[in-house]
Amino acid sequence: MAVGLHSPSRLPPVAGVRIGIAEAGIKYSERPDLVVFELATGAQCAAVFTRNRFCAAPVLLARQHLQQGAPRYLVINSGNANAGTGEAGLRDASEVCATLAGLGGCSTEAVLPFSTGVIGEPLPVARVCKALPGILKGLDADAWLHAAHAIMTTDTVAKGAFREIPGAASNAHLVGIAKGSGMIRPDMATLLVFMATDLAVAPDVLQQALQAAVSGSFHRITVDGDTSTNDACVVVATGASGEPVISSTDDPRYPVLQRVLDEVCLELSQAVVRDAEGVTKFIAIEVCEGATEQECLDTAFTIAHSPLVKSAFFASDPNWGRILAAVGRAPLPDLAIEKIRIHLGEVCIVEEGGRARDYREELGQAVMDKPEISIRIALGRGTSKATVWTSDLSYDYVRINAEYRT
Amino acid sequence: MAVGLHSPSRLPPVAGVRIGIAEAGIKYSERPDLVVFELATGAQCAAVFTRNRFCAAPVLLARQHLQQGAPRYLVINSGNANAGTGEAGLRDASEVCATLAGLGGCSTEAVLPFSTGVIGEPLPVARVCKALPGILKGLDADAWLHAAHAIMTTDTVAKGAFREIPGAASNAHLVGIAKGSGMIRPDMATLLVFMATDLAVAPDVLQQALQAAVSGSFHRITVDGDTSTNDACVVVATGASGEPVISSTDDPRYPVLQRVLDEVCLELSQAVVRDAEGVTKFIAIEVCEGATEQECLDTAFTIAHSPLVKSAFFASDPNWGRILAAVGRAPLPDLAIEKIRIHLGEVCIVEEGGRARDYREELGQAVMDKPEISIRIALGRGTSKATVWTSDLSYDYVRINAEYRT
Repeated sequence: MAVGLHSPSRLPPVAGVRIGIAEAGIKYSERPDLVVFELATGAQCAAVFTRNRFCAAPVLLARQHLQQGAPRYLVINSGNANAGTGEAGLRDASEVCATLAGLGGCSTEAVLPFSTGVIGEPLPVARVCKALPGILKGLDADAWLHAAHAIMTTDTVAKGAFREIPGAASNAHLVGIAKGSGMIRPDMATLLVFMATDLAVAPDVLQQALQAAVSGSFHRITVDGDTSTNDACVVVATGASGEPVISSTDDPRYPVLQRVLDEVCLELSQAVVRDAEGVTKFIAIEVCEGATEQECLDTAFTIAHSPLVKSAFFASDPNWGRILAAVGRAPLPDLAIEKIRIHLGEVCIVEEGGRARDYREELGQAVMDKPEISIRIALGRGTSKATVWTSDLSYDYVRINAEYRT
Repeated sequence: MAVGLHSPSRLPPVAGVRIGIAEAGIKYSERPDLVVFELATGAQCAAVFTRNRFCAAPVLLARQHLQQGAPRYLVINSGNANAGTGEAGLRDASEVCATLAGLGGCSTEAVLPFSTGVIGEPLPVARVCKALPGILKGLDADAWLHAAHAIMTTDTVAKGAFREIPGAASNAHLVGIAKGSGMIRPDMATLLVFMATDLAVAPDVLQQALQAAVSGSFHRITVDGDTSTNDACVVVATGASGEPVISSTDDPRYPVLQRVLDEVCLELSQAVVRDAEGVTKFIAIEVCEGATEQECLDTAFTIAHSPLVKSAFFASDPNWGRILAAVGRAPLPDLAIEKIRIHLGEVCIVEEGGRARDYREELGQAVMDKPEISIRIALGRGTSKATVWTSDLSYDYVRINAEYRT
């Protein structure tokens, strides 16, 4: 059961984007598993991809195609990752792009492919290609929510978010969908994110805004510390709002774009953690008073990746000893443990290297019993801080990953 | 259920070491939980401790006392870690040492304390001290196996190993016991190891031999990537065999000592993994053809710490995609994925960046169905190699750590 997360009741269309969806029978039957985004001529696109070196064929191809110019189509399938498939996988992804390009009247390079699902199985490329003509006939601007469902794998809730752009033309906004539930950690995860705005933004400005937004959101979540072969996060600026292009970060509208993009990325990234495999708790880990932001992040991720801490959260056990032990092995040079304070919610549990004087078990228990929990670790050695978000480690995490062939 | 591990049927005594055991009622009732090792005058001792900065009071004290000279007593309790207990914890550990020193007629500094169990609870020091006189009355050279039982926490099997020293005086040998099951990773874990030999060895030589042995054994195992606050590995050389002191690494007997110490440490460290919390598989991960040993280790630990890989092992699922994805995120600069080959047992599953041509699922399945599994990853970029040992991630790991207050 996802924690504090419901599928959005609606996601508005974005002028300049039309969406087609099909049941191609790639792995699942009787559910949509293939999505095409058609982008208006002149739409600009920015993307970040997995840092895993074993990246999937569609990632290699999408990255390469994006360098050739603005895309006209995105094609996404769930149920098969087309990863670990070598040269054949590249040919398969290329064939999907070429087929869609032929139907849509653009170059193969103007199609970006994305895949998520089982690693190491050949993509059933014939089934994908066969579904494409029907998809193009049914393109619809108002299908974001439907697309959010079609890209799910182990997700239990379809994930979407949108914001209106303050001060922009009426109806200008940013809409995004995401999928991801396991194989989640910073450096991107088994995560696909598609966002679009009808603002007009120059490609380098859009790329810069996306990287900044991702570094504060998708790079700050972890479920299990595993990175996927297929991650991609894409934002499209169609320009269909008719406003002048935001062509520099000095444009007074740039900070507004950045803020809206930050908000949508943060909401979608937290949605991924709220729907993490087997999740029963949504946990925010804030590390403050660090010498650098990096050491705050390192400490937060050390805690967030600890199976012992995560299984204590699953048990609603205020086992502060495990949090303290995780802080003690974080890569912090010259850590003065007597300066460290740890709060669970508003309850101080550790000070001066040991249990806080006023701490009583029932105070910690009351915090742990809630589905949403925050921990704050003050390192007492500076003014930097960072927050990451994670989930607990439950029986269901093991069950899902023992049963599911990623 | 431990994998391929049984409690030793006997552990021989070591001349110069006597052992006393009691039921002090520290946390458990009706089971032994307190052990004293009495060392002969002139016995030398070497030790390595946890690298966790939040190290426990007994670790701080043992490290400090060891610098003052050769110890006469080791005192070990299970059921309470005396960690995260601040100044009071140090006073408590010190009081135990002073009480034992008073009874034994030595200085407080000649007593080394060790604790394992729940973090953050005050040590019931009165109960410990009350049990000490009885322990000293019942000292017995032939009690190693009994001691191995007394130091267990979540262990299911008492762990011990011994070797005769080839070429040494008749009866000269090395005996060791260990406890550890969770909070296990390199840099030592919730791990206590006590070993003794009746050889005479100079302290610096003994320390060097111990560090070499530990780096190839206890630093190469991981259960969950968590390091404990209390780890310690101790070896004592009593000199009771009457042979001349091994006072330099140039002594021709030094390589023999090193080999025997290596063997006992390897056997004990693997015993810890075989009895890991919730274990159903014992997994050896060998990374070869690396540019450096360190990058082989980094790659092996990335795989060994992956919850997705570990839950696939639990399911006996030959899910090579997850292994490949873990290799892909290991910290290897300029990894050429097309050179990588992965074997599961003797079955080649990955070559040239994708599934091996001759691989069939049933071949991988046959390997995965066994309780002991080896993976070999050839990086194709050098001649270095390294092996680490780990366990799978099961429902029981989560259950044990959700129920047990470390």
